[in-house]
Amino acid sequence: MKFNEKQATANLENLERIFTVPEDPSSTLGLIDNEISQNLVGFLTENIVACQQEIEDIETDFSDPVIPQDPKFVSAQTRFLLDKLVSKSVHTSSPSFVGHMTSALPTFMLPLSRIMIALNQNMVKVETSKAFTPMERQTIGMIHHLIYGREDEFYTRWMHDHHNCIGSFCSGGTIANITALWAARNHFLAPDGDFAGIGQDGLVAALQHYGYKGIAVLASERAHYSLAKSADILGIGRANIVTVETDRKQRVKTAELARRAKELKARGIMPFSVIGIAGTSETGSVDPLNELAEIAGDIGAMFHVDAAWGGPTLFSDKYRDILSGIEHADSVTIDAHKQLYVPMGAGMVVFKEPNLASSIEHHAEYVVRKGSKDIGSFSLEGSRSGMAMLVHSSLNIIGHKGYGILIDQGIEKARRFAELIKAQPDFALVSEPELNILTYRLVPEDLQQTLLDASEHEANQINEILNKLTKHIQKIQRARGKSFVSRTQLKPIEQHRYPVVVFRVVLANPLSTDEVLADILEEQRAIFAESSSQAIIAELDNIEPLTDVG
Amino acid sequence: MKFNEKQATANLENLERIFTVPEDPSSTLGLIDNEISQNLVGFLTENIVACQQEIEDIETDFSDPVIPQDPKFVSAQTRFLLDKLVSKSVHTSSPSFVGHMTSALPTFMLPLSRIMIALNQNMVKVETSKAFTPMERQTIGMIHHLIYGREDEFYTRWMHDHHNCIGSFCSGGTIANITALWAARNHFLAPDGDFAGIGQDGLVAALQHYGYKGIAVLASERAHYSLAKSADILGIGRANIVTVETDRKQRVKTAELARRAKELKARGIMPFSVIGIAGTSETGSVDPLNELAEIAGDIGAMFHVDAAWGGPTLFSDKYRDILSGIEHADSVTIDAHKQLYVPMGAGMVVFKEPNLASSIEHHAEYVVRKGSKDIGSFSLEGSRSGMAMLVHSSLNIIGHKGYGILIDQGIEKARRFAELIKAQPDFALVSEPELNILTYRLVPEDLQQTLLDASEHEANQINEILNKLTKHIQKIQRARGKSFVSRTQLKPIEQHRYPVVVFRVVLANPLSTDEVLADILEEQRAIFAESSSQAIIAELDNIEPLTDVG
Repeated sequence: MKFNEKQATANLENLERIFTVPEDPSSTLGLIDNEISQNLVGFLTENIVACQQEIEDIETDFSDPVIPQDPKFVSAQTRFLLDKLVSKSVHTSSPSFVGHMTSALPTFMLPLSRIMIALNQNMVKVETSKAFTPMERQTIGMIHHLIYGREDEFYTRWMHDHHNCIGSFCSGGTIANITALWAARNHFLAPDGDFAGIGQDGLVAALQHYGYKGIAVLASERAHYSLAKSADILGIGRANIVTVETDRKQRVKTAELARRAKELKARGIMPFSVIGIAGTSETGSVDPLNELAEIAGDIGAMFHVDAAWGGPTLFSDKYRDILSGIEHADSVTIDAHKQLYVPMGAGMVVFKEPNLASSIEHHAEYVVRKGSKDIGSFSLEGSRSGMAMLVHSSLNIIGHKGYGILIDQGIEKARRFAELIKAQPDFALVSEPELNILTYRLVPEDLQQTLLDASEHEANQINEILNKLTKHIQKIQRARGKSFVSRTQLKPIEQHRYPVVVFRVVLANPLSTDEVLADILEEQRAIFAESSSQAIIAELDNIEPLTDVG
Repeated sequence: MKFNEKQATANLENLERIFTVPEDPSSTLGLIDNEISQNLVGFLTENIVACQQEIEDIETDFSDPVIPQDPKFVSAQTRFLLDKLVSKSVHTSSPSFVGHMTSALPTFMLPLSRIMIALNQNMVKVETSKAFTPMERQTIGMIHHLIYGREDEFYTRWMHDHHNCIGSFCSGGTIANITALWAARNHFLAPDGDFAGIGQDGLVAALQHYGYKGIAVLASERAHYSLAKSADILGIGRANIVTVETDRKQRVKTAELARRAKELKARGIMPFSVIGIAGTSETGSVDPLNELAEIAGDIGAMFHVDAAWGGPTLFSDKYRDILSGIEHADSVTIDAHKQLYVPMGAGMVVFKEPNLASSIEHHAEYVVRKGSKDIGSFSLEGSRSGMAMLVHSSLNIIGHKGYGILIDQGIEKARRFAELIKAQPDFALVSEPELNILTYRLVPEDLQQTLLDASEHEANQINEILNKLTKHIQKIQRARGKSFVSRTQLKPIEQHRYPVVVFRVVLANPLSTDEVLADILEEQRAIFAESSSQAIIAELDNIEPLTDVG
């Protein structure tokens, strides 16, 4: 504490000290630092409390917009963070928090991250990253090889070629998807004769030059919302993302997609990109990638696969076939902060062919000069951290086999959990896990048969009440802080037209055991038995049969 | 080492261990971790060697694209990183590395970063960030207040309003600039009657609806290259970034900009955004922001200020007036990983009015639901880390006054260095430091007068040789690894038409002393005396006077 005093406040005249004098191990921050390295799980369990506080109440601790005039003790700020921020954050690595895509981290990630942060490299140019540049290129190459498995010569020729790149590292899947669509758009509307390309002359001139009325993207209606964002940013417009409906397994209907493509072309609107999803956010479904690749080829569009979630399934000898066809994609998105188990902020897009990235190449005079090895010429972001070091390390430390085991465990755990749900009289599985994500809901036993026998009109009313119930149980469970499943709304399934709200479970955390999952069902059942839930289900009594007024 | 063995390889059947068993303090990684926390400066100095290796040689250590099948010891990977990556990285925090915008980090950043990474929050939604959401909103609010200093009621009303946002946190200045231009473009081509807005219907429909031939952006020719990238991504086209020339002080000529705006409008091309730069990357110059704000107002364009570098100048009571007019900007970019001294990967854009961000609002069903407090609705990125915690902490720990002192020191150090350069007979200052960046070159004493007296034709030839010399000295100095200045090429200055290559020095590192700077000149002078430099300067003998062939 004394040390921190000296460090921060006492020395307005000698501020350099905060850049040179290390944190005292006996200071508040030093002690926490040590505790985290010695007992990460314990630190998180003890310091993140099940916070019942509403977000509006938490806001009161973060309400002053004025930057304090005077320096503050490091220890005082640390104390504030512990009390007001850490304790009220989310225990994303908890084994019973299975509602999001953020898992536990391998413990070696913490000291490795410290090295990465201490080095503070900037990947934009070799000048501030040196060996980090080839390291990042190799990391991209390793993911490229996992997906495409090209021959040795390909990587020898292209992996470090500074006029090209076979992928781009970025902060996450959204940037990766935008980058992929940006490259596809620019490749489709490339320079041609007098026309300098869309990047130079813009979309209007591009359409004029090529004689198109518009351009469009074809994807499943289950595509990630970053796709709509991409279409907005790229000037295409969300309306020109043509979303195609899915089958019972939440996979895009390919015949319908091909039909829509034809229809668009007949109207002079060119579908320049077909998107396949390898692991939808909501149900983990995988589109028929081989068929999509064929359609894309037929209509002359680029084929992009969003494998932000499902990509690492390729590590599994048992299950990699689920992603069959991904090797035909022109570009693939993978998030490293999901199933590669690195900290938040690591995504990648890889390009099948090295020339695709050239359509998004940018240069400047003082940085990313033409002909330099600067990797910043091919990325949407400018300055970037050396996060690739963490991916490089985990690929080496966990290895192909290790990741394969983690993937197998997740998929098999999801299957067991699905069986468990089906065995319950008062729960109903809504989507079978294709990978390690499933959805379900609580449907009281006596209602299950009623729902099957009901007319569409009645079923819709029942579902409306069940949706309310699911939302209610999910919120209560989240607020109590013992466990967490997320919820989402699925489009109509089977014969019922009504959208269904479901519990969503993501099983990537190796620490989530079958027992933890069974407990989650028990807790939901207990919440259902409480009066607030019963009040919702009592609304069933008011359901009115359809009276034909014809 | 033994421990790491157990952890990684021996346990393919029990992989969960890597998520629970902490790194042994006596393992290689544990020891490094401890060394970095106890002696960061020492660690960096000892472990980053002055690496003479060419990048092509370094690549050989990163040439295998195949992910290893079997797990690797943590200690083996750590050893590899130390030998092949850390030792060949760039000592970005070295006091004598004054060529880039990456400075030393306050030592408290390391343990704080560890907390941030251990918590592994995902800012995209409250579900995975809880208290981090109001904390990030406050951090944005603090920067907003620094720039705009709005009344208390403004922040009470808007800072935590979940239907709006007064800024967006992101990975860096490029994303911030793209976000600002995206918002401006969508605001300019907003929904109107039957037209659903550019975000929904795309650029072509938008121009049709409003009856414009095109849209354009006006900026200085010194604008950051991310601006060209933005124009490409947003579908506007780089050709529609109208760059205006600068005066002797590298500041945009406002009258010329106003003239170009009028000319564009007369052709049916609407300038929807005027950009001002507060600290150009090359010379740290600041555009006349008040005049630009007025022009933007007159022509009905949004006014964006790229203060990625210069923004924190606002902390200085002495120098904040250099940025006068920034408070009129509709949006401002600031990089926290530059002069706020947080690790790489932290940028921000703030919006003067809370409604601007609504033009880029996005929602989805399972995440960032409408009406939620999810901050992901307003960001270009999706999943994001809790980096804002580091900005929040440094704003509190260093405080307004602390930052003010750091800014003053940098600017004054740059002025002293400029004087030192001017006092040398064999150096020439090329751009005076307006903030803490300056450029200069070595011009042998006997050449200084020659250059002044030379005809344009002769001067151009001399400058061509001097440019070669500057490049040569910069490369040699960089390779020797003792110190580093960057180089860039400036457009013609004064009467000479020839572009001038210069050394560029950025003085944000509080540890760079006047002595360090004097040594840099000495080293350059010594390199000039070497035969390889003398061979270049000898080319002066071949200069031919202009023979009129008229």
